[in-house]
Amino acid sequence: MDCIFCKIANGQAPANIIYQDKKIIAFDDIYPKAPQHKLIIPRKHIATMNDLAKDDAGLIEEMTLVAQKLAKELNIDQTGYRIIINCNQDGGQIVYHLHLHLIGGRPLMFTG
Amino acid sequence: MDCIFCKIANGQAPANIIYQDKKIIAFDDIYPKAPQHKLIIPRKHIATMNDLAKDDAGLIEEMTLVAQKLAKELNIDQTGYRIIINCNQDGGQIVYHLHLHLIGGRPLMFTG
Repeated sequence: MDCIFCKIANGQAPANIIYQDKKIIAFDDIYPKAPQHKLIIPRKHIATMNDLAKDDAGLIEEMTLVAQKLAKELNIDQTGYRIIINCNQDGGQIVYHLHLHLIGGRPLMFTG
Repeated sequence: MDCIFCKIANGQAPANIIYQDKKIIAFDDIYPKAPQHKLIIPRKHIATMNDLAKDDAGLIEEMTLVAQKLAKELNIDQTGYRIIINCNQDGGQIVYHLHLHLIGGRPLMFTG
């Protein structure tokens, strides 16, 4: 498996990991778009949002709850933040392992 | 309750509804940022992502699965799309009833 996020989840590639449990791992985006930019991924390799099977959809709930918890820890819950999942080329997906962006720390534009 | 999304969910305000079930409703964003821009909301009033209780977190899974299904129906699943939840001011949240944006139909910038 040549997936960088699988490697991070397996400890075979470096990342600043800020949260992990049996199913989920979260770490700093190495190209942050804002003062706070974290990535939250399932350990399981799922290429895109399209590939999320119903049996695995509980992962989205868990990833989102991790985002909610991290937003509080990072002290951006009251000022505000954005949660994003990019799918395929038009969505701007770069790494083909499902991931949720948590972005905040400044007012975010919403231009699409 | 003076919430516009509650009113849409209750049929008391107009919207172009494209999906509904017992818990979730989806409709066109009236200020689309891209050729496809849909909003997916829980019928239950939850003000922000911060206010999503663990007992209600299954709603996020259901909302995301509706987004996945709509992306396919709108024929943007292969070209790509973005799923967004904005929370509070920095996130750009306008309506304080939890909602998920599904955006696609053209290449999206990812500038934050």
